[in-house]
Amino acid sequence: MNREFLSIVAKLSESSNILVVGHIMPDGDDISSVLSAKIGLERLGKNVLAGIDWRIPWYFYEFEEVNQILTYEQVKERGFRPEVVLIVDASSPDRVGQFQEFFDSTTVLLMDHHATNTLFGDHNWVDTKFGSTAQMVVRVNNELGVPYDEKLATLNLMGIATDTGFFRYSNADETVFSDATKLVSLGGKVHLVSRIFENKRIEQFKLLSTMVDHLRLELDDKIVYSYLSKEDYENNNCNEDDSGGFVGELRSLRGVELAIFLSEYDSGEVHISFRSKDWFDCSKLATMLGGGGHPRAAGCTIKGDLYVIVEEVIREAKNLFLTSLTSLNDSASK
Amino acid sequence: MNREFLSIVAKLSESSNILVVGHIMPDGDDISSVLSAKIGLERLGKNVLAGIDWRIPWYFYEFEEVNQILTYEQVKERGFRPEVVLIVDASSPDRVGQFQEFFDSTTVLLMDHHATNTLFGDHNWVDTKFGSTAQMVVRVNNELGVPYDEKLATLNLMGIATDTGFFRYSNADETVFSDATKLVSLGGKVHLVSRIFENKRIEQFKLLSTMVDHLRLELDDKIVYSYLSKEDYENNNCNEDDSGGFVGELRSLRGVELAIFLSEYDSGEVHISFRSKDWFDCSKLATMLGGGGHPRAAGCTIKGDLYVIVEEVIREAKNLFLTSLTSLNDSASK
Repeated sequence: MNREFLSIVAKLSESSNILVVGHIMPDGDDISSVLSAKIGLERLGKNVLAGIDWRIPWYFYEFEEVNQILTYEQVKERGFRPEVVLIVDASSPDRVGQFQEFFDSTTVLLMDHHATNTLFGDHNWVDTKFGSTAQMVVRVNNELGVPYDEKLATLNLMGIATDTGFFRYSNADETVFSDATKLVSLGGKVHLVSRIFENKRIEQFKLLSTMVDHLRLELDDKIVYSYLSKEDYENNNCNEDDSGGFVGELRSLRGVELAIFLSEYDSGEVHISFRSKDWFDCSKLATMLGGGGHPRAAGCTIKGDLYVIVEEVIREAKNLFLTSLTSLNDSASK
Repeated sequence: MNREFLSIVAKLSESSNILVVGHIMPDGDDISSVLSAKIGLERLGKNVLAGIDWRIPWYFYEFEEVNQILTYEQVKERGFRPEVVLIVDASSPDRVGQFQEFFDSTTVLLMDHHATNTLFGDHNWVDTKFGSTAQMVVRVNNELGVPYDEKLATLNLMGIATDTGFFRYSNADETVFSDATKLVSLGGKVHLVSRIFENKRIEQFKLLSTMVDHLRLELDDKIVYSYLSKEDYENNNCNEDDSGGFVGELRSLRGVELAIFLSEYDSGEVHISFRSKDWFDCSKLATMLGGGGHPRAAGCTIKGDLYVIVEEVIREAKNLFLTSLTSLNDSASK
């Protein structure tokens, strides 16, 4: 058994007051991991708060437990003094936002599956072989003896399902499936997880049409990109939460290897998502641009004018794509 | 062990020339079951042909094995004289199209998971507890001792993945997950299956916009429906294959219980798909209209004018919906 894993389990076991923290711009795996860890530790009689320093997209409120996740301000107001902070799914300290302030006064435990993780905790269990951080939470909860029921099993499944694109991505390996099988046998319901994506508004279809209108292909249709400006969101009566799956739609186009979606979150701030199908390393591109992630799914944030950023990002993407393609072909011909 | 299952295994075991037949308007489970049974039997040294009396949607050709599925005319041309016909995933004899002509001269073995199955074979293994017919093929192949490799495991996984909406529907139970885990452990790759839906054309996004333009809500937004005419398809440079996932898009709208998509396949012939989220019995509605299927997913074909059929189908749907809602509320208040 991994030593860092055992250290984290031991620290959690001996602590009474625990703060569980997720990352900014939270996704399904992050929210699942935060809630599964929090509820698991509470079932062992511990005093636990959970926090994420970011607005949580509306569709996750399909699970009422999401209301248990506090903002940084709410955690501070409560005057909570945790002995340990358990950070899940965050690859670098900036990803936890203002919760970094707790680092000096507590022991920081870190659990993550991102290869770009900077190991910023006192104990770092980072293992890229897992398709989701939620699977790491399963193992910690099991080791701690947390009892599971339908509610906890379903919340924990959410991370496995969402980080593997509902078992469709290449990270959906045997461990992913056997972990999911186990949670389903404990009462977990994937169809309840899929509800978070079955609450679409008609406006989201209109927003998709706008994105398709902006769609461009590059490098013999191997790269596809599109963007939405703050004005596009407003014109469609939408906000950034409503375009959650759009980069996946771009990726689903025939022949595409790299899909890029740029979203103007606020004037002067652009969120960029990268997805690839077979071989392009999105995390390399995202890291070059100040972000991070996985080989097949990564992202970054850039401040400045949307249209200037679109130009810059696509230029960088094309350069790295061509360089990578050359070395791919070189190694294939060896 | 089920007696019909054992009879089918015994008949297959003792036969040398076998025709495997799927249903008209084939879906992923049907194509997966046909190919997994065919390839499995061939690995036991048998002489096997596979047939489907319908055009196979282009995106399934992502798997080159789909080329092994013959039309009725191709099977006839070869003068093939099978001892048994193995029918998979078809709920009534009309669903196999012209292949019914083989019924008089052969033993008909039937494997299916549709509750609306009319048991038209000489041996009928029909079990609605399976999320997909592909899982039944796994069991027959295992009993026969068929060796699996990545190719066969992936083809067999296709049916489990597609008939459960990539593990998102309520039929994705523990057996579905444990069967999938087993196939993944044998080399099956779900991400290769998902490729069939990652070959979109930009025109499909435009077609989706057209469908959204036709979208209507009924009964306090509990029913959503839309349609595409033959002209809509032509104007978008598409055909019916391109709208495969559209009923699922309608179903994903917030608050919707029943989604209905009507597609004019040919002038005078309309294909209708029904999907529900929680309680509405789609197969009851489809059966009333001359079709069949599952409680959460069903369909039918009606000949006549598209716009007249839209009116009729929505009227019937609303009536049954209100009747069902009344009895649902009655039983809830008891």
